Amino acid sequence: MIYNQNDSVRLSPDGKSVVIIDQTKLPGEKKLLTLNDEAEMFDAISSLKVRGAPAIGIFAGYALYVLACRFDEGEDFFERLEKTAEYLNSARPTAVNLSYALDRVRNAALSKAGCGRQEILETMKGEAEKIHLEDIESCERMSRYGLSLVKSGDGILTHCNAGALATSRYGTALGPLLYGAERGYKFHAYIDETRPLLQGSRLTAYELMSAGIDCTLICDNMAGLVMSQGKIQACFAGCDRAAVNGDCANKIGTLSVAVLADYYKIPFYIFCPTSTIDVNCKTGADIVIEERKPEEITSLYFDRQIAPEGINCYNPAFDVTPNSLITAIITEKGIIRRGESIEKIL
Amino acid sequence: MIYNQNDSVRLSPDGKSVVIIDQTKLPGEKKLLTLNDEAEMFDAISSLKVRGAPAIGIFAGYALYVLACRFDEGEDFFERLEKTAEYLNSARPTAVNLSYALDRVRNAALSKAGCGRQEILETMKGEAEKIHLEDIESCERMSRYGLSLVKSGDGILTHCNAGALATSRYGTALGPLLYGAERGYKFHAYIDETRPLLQGSRLTAYELMSAGIDCTLICDNMAGLVMSQGKIQACFAGCDRAAVNGDCANKIGTLSVAVLADYYKIPFYIFCPTSTIDVNCKTGADIVIEERKPEEITSLYFDRQIAPEGINCYNPAFDVTPNSLITAIITEKGIIRRGESIEKIL
Repeated sequence: MIYNQNDSVRLSPDGKSVVIIDQTKLPGEKKLLTLNDEAEMFDAISSLKVRGAPAIGIFAGYALYVLACRFDEGEDFFERLEKTAEYLNSARPTAVNLSYALDRVRNAALSKAGCGRQEILETMKGEAEKIHLEDIESCERMSRYGLSLVKSGDGILTHCNAGALATSRYGTALGPLLYGAERGYKFHAYIDETRPLLQGSRLTAYELMSAGIDCTLICDNMAGLVMSQGKIQACFAGCDRAAVNGDCANKIGTLSVAVLADYYKIPFYIFCPTSTIDVNCKTGADIVIEERKPEEITSLYFDRQIAPEGINCYNPAFDVTPNSLITAIITEKGIIRRGESIEKIL
Repeated sequence: MIYNQNDSVRLSPDGKSVVIIDQTKLPGEKKLLTLNDEAEMFDAISSLKVRGAPAIGIFAGYALYVLACRFDEGEDFFERLEKTAEYLNSARPTAVNLSYALDRVRNAALSKAGCGRQEILETMKGEAEKIHLEDIESCERMSRYGLSLVKSGDGILTHCNAGALATSRYGTALGPLLYGAERGYKFHAYIDETRPLLQGSRLTAYELMSAGIDCTLICDNMAGLVMSQGKIQACFAGCDRAAVNGDCANKIGTLSVAVLADYYKIPFYIFCPTSTIDVNCKTGADIVIEERKPEEITSLYFDRQIAPEGINCYNPAFDVTPNSLITAIITEKGIIRRGESIEKIL
């Protein structure tokens, strides 16, 4: 079941590589990458070829297994495993799923310390597949919960991409749209293009159009206008790391959408599998925000200059939306409404 | 005085053409265009080669004069003048300065009906130069008023471009920064890139860097984050058309900035010469919002596809910020604070 040819991340049938859809090439080209080299895997995460917190987690689990299969017989297996996990974990700082998945697969290996190498590897593979399978189930559950919060005919504003590409199957924040469409719901999706890397216009637009959902692309700065025109009944966003108090880090611009939704009295929902909750973060202030290269702003995919040479840029990849601006957090274990403790579902 | 070689719009020394800086070529190239053909002039306005409400007005005044000089002796001068003014006026719907300037130069001609052609043309030229001169004075006055609202060291968020390129000399919303810098004020400007046409990253960044002002470019969706971080002490935006109740139409995204500023309790200022107030608009609801081509969103300057073929787009060029979100409107005749009637300065 989990080797679905449409999944954006999967283990190759021979188990020797991780296969991903190169998300930087969409929507122009649907290119598959077959990765089995440590540096290529690091690059796939850091350059956003694989992106979306759950997809990064699924990828990292398989990647650690694939790399462990290639460790030399001579070296200390667990020492090398530790170093490899640390290396992959350093590819991006904000998405908690990366360290979460690496920890799970490494701990699965450690639980078999003393056993034969083949048994250790089988256990790692099983754990990586479990992460993937859990994500599929989790997305379907979140989609159902999310669907209960809206009605057919609603206008839904989305930011960034939290669909099947970012996760598995239905996705998180796009889940209710995709799951609902299969069940006859008619939505009108407004898609924030999501500068600088345009995950909305490249990926969400591609996914929603492919699913036949009525959708309209807007620039991020048009969200206020469409809200003021009464076109939006709910806002859906994903989550890259949630603190225990309910503050949520997600793609840069999510905070602005939440403030606008608050002003226009529109419900603002964050879709967050429990694997994305970081119990080590008490509040959003504990979340490290990744800053990326200025060239992502000054040129479009590094090939056309759109700002003066040498201009200072501030390019945070994420922002933190305080829990006070979040109407509800949707997890696979249930809906946490504003004012409720996130700990009730942990 | 008004034939300043640095002005973004000016009459050529021989009076036979209008010379503009092609703003679509900045920041890569500072290209001058010498225009004397009706269709080229229409295109210069509609394709944003000349842009910014005051600059469009100055351009239109000179353009009508230059074209009138070329009317055939045989045709009815005033009938042709009427048609030419209507044609130019149809190039863009939102900026009131376009019709305001055309009306003034046409009415100047009408006031000389019955006089010799040369006298009519001289009067038209004088009126066009007067519009230009008034704008220079108006910008300097607004810059002084604006400067009184901030202090050295402040972080100022700007949206779109309302500097010298959009107006003359100091500009409107950028005026306090440029005028203040000459007087030793140190500001840190945060520049919204302003999708889809990137007037912030292309034009404002170019103007502020050229003036040696400390500035940082951000994507529009980062404004909420930098406000939440305490980096912004005031927001400055221009205006394309103001209603009598103080609602202001300006570049798309201005409304979102105003809502964010309101949430973070940061003053939000609109710079609006009285020529931009439309006494025929009672409220913002009377303002027609220009919708532009989807290709401005789906490709960057029409040469690289960044969204799926065929995606629906909504591409409004402006939005209307309600007066309740505007801390003060700065005009050349004084500052109108929230709650005060705009009519006090008319």
